[in-house]
Amino acid sequence: MNEFALIEALRGLATHPAARGLADDCAVLELGAEALVLTHDTMVEGVHWLAGQDMADVAWKLVAVNLSDLAAKGAEPLGVLLGHMLGDGDARFVDGLREVFHAFGVPLLGGDTVAGGAPRAIGLTAIGRATHRPVPARSGARAGDEVWITGPVGAAMMGFEALRDGTGGNSTAYRRPRPLLAEGRALAPFVSAIMDVSDGVLLDASRMAAASGVTIDIAGADVPLAAPEDRRADALRWGDDYQLLFTLPQRLTPPLAAHRIGTVRPHGGAPLLIDGVPPPDGDRLGYAHGA
Amino acid sequence: MNEFALIEALRGLATHPAARGLADDCAVLELGAEALVLTHDTMVEGVHWLAGQDMADVAWKLVAVNLSDLAAKGAEPLGVLLGHMLGDGDARFVDGLREVFHAFGVPLLGGDTVAGGAPRAIGLTAIGRATHRPVPARSGARAGDEVWITGPVGAAMMGFEALRDGTGGNSTAYRRPRPLLAEGRALAPFVSAIMDVSDGVLLDASRMAAASGVTIDIAGADVPLAAPEDRRADALRWGDDYQLLFTLPQRLTPPLAAHRIGTVRPHGGAPLLIDGVPPPDGDRLGYAHGA
Repeated sequence: MNEFALIEALRGLATHPAARGLADDCAVLELGAEALVLTHDTMVEGVHWLAGQDMADVAWKLVAVNLSDLAAKGAEPLGVLLGHMLGDGDARFVDGLREVFHAFGVPLLGGDTVAGGAPRAIGLTAIGRATHRPVPARSGARAGDEVWITGPVGAAMMGFEALRDGTGGNSTAYRRPRPLLAEGRALAPFVSAIMDVSDGVLLDASRMAAASGVTIDIAGADVPLAAPEDRRADALRWGDDYQLLFTLPQRLTPPLAAHRIGTVRPHGGAPLLIDGVPPPDGDRLGYAHGA
Repeated sequence: MNEFALIEALRGLATHPAARGLADDCAVLELGAEALVLTHDTMVEGVHWLAGQDMADVAWKLVAVNLSDLAAKGAEPLGVLLGHMLGDGDARFVDGLREVFHAFGVPLLGGDTVAGGAPRAIGLTAIGRATHRPVPARSGARAGDEVWITGPVGAAMMGFEALRDGTGGNSTAYRRPRPLLAEGRALAPFVSAIMDVSDGVLLDASRMAAASGVTIDIAGADVPLAAPEDRRADALRWGDDYQLLFTLPQRLTPPLAAHRIGTVRPHGGAPLLIDGVPPPDGDRLGYAHGA
């Protein structure tokens, strides 16, 4: 059973209306007058962080990527639960947790610690409450909408390469991403669809299109870059920047600084077009888990 | 940093009033008119299950042990999120999930799948809503209360040994524990303290005593057994039966079949007495994680 078959099988079990998605989305659970937003991400050594990386950065990122999922729902974080596999650098891990909880005002509610081996896996569940109803989803893009992004991509890629190669360049964007919680709350009442860009703007736009049953056409040159221009193609296929990708009905402008990068078309043959043309076969578009 | 130091450090971060405990307890989060109960447990191959064990049983147990934490809060499950590390037996794992979700009427809300290695770690977060306020805790036992348990211990130990030794004996209690959800809801309005017995009745009683600032005196011969009498000492130190351990004010009787197994005394030198006597040094009392 490969990962895709497993995810399909799990989706078959996730029939509750709250289960909007598995693997990269949030669950939305109505409870009394509130709507809870729940997400779980696991990070694995050597996959989601470099072996030997400062565990304070790993802790920060683990929390930040889960909060980014909440941001994309316009949700306010209530807290997190940690599933921690013991290992080297635990004291630094605690330091990083302290910093990220302080930075975003999020409490640790509980969790579990287990003995483990290598590679280590550390999971986190984040719980938030929706600030706007209905809770926005990635599936709401409609033909005629315009596609927007909150800021540039590529900073995390440049930071990763600086860290990996020991160049001494600035790696903050890769090590310490910032979930756009305030931006997500500001956007939630207006967007037709929204998600965070965790795996690359092209791949995530393609997922938004598939979830919405439309085709999204990205104007490649319009995507703002935080990388050299000759790295544009790579930066569009690199995740970890945690910008928010969203669609708005035509003629609406977002209530914050953002960049228009494409349009939503009726469902065509391909979910994604780049400058009007389907990407060539074999273009993975971004970071695909398990691929 | 050993596990105990880490847990202490994490507790230092878990200052939110919702964070009643880490590692083996639930968080309780007030939200509007509701109280959410949240728990996360991770299971590791070779630690929490036998290498080569049917992954359907592993899936069942992972869900059941988290639901048991909700049961001990009198909470009704709302759903679970899965953090799954891919590996052998995933198709069976999905079968087990389907069975346990059906058995207890619990939906899969979401989660994450990651590539991993050995040993595998699989985490689960369960979310419930409290059916009684205030939500009961392990910390409420008061001197003069009596100590009760919902049923016998030792069945899981016998089942584990049958499975490990390939005797063909019945291993259902070890492989497929049943969270006492209805019992927990029935008890919640009456108990002064309650927890599930996951690590052994003596060890968990000792934890309840420590959390409550009292001494608990267990009458060893009064603990009901689902094991041969000559295994009594072991059965009192073996977890995995997921009975509910609770205290009631004197002269109250529980609203369901249960067994009185001890008394709560004012805080003395030791948190736990067995037949009036502190356990000898070196008696680990049960299954201590990381020990």
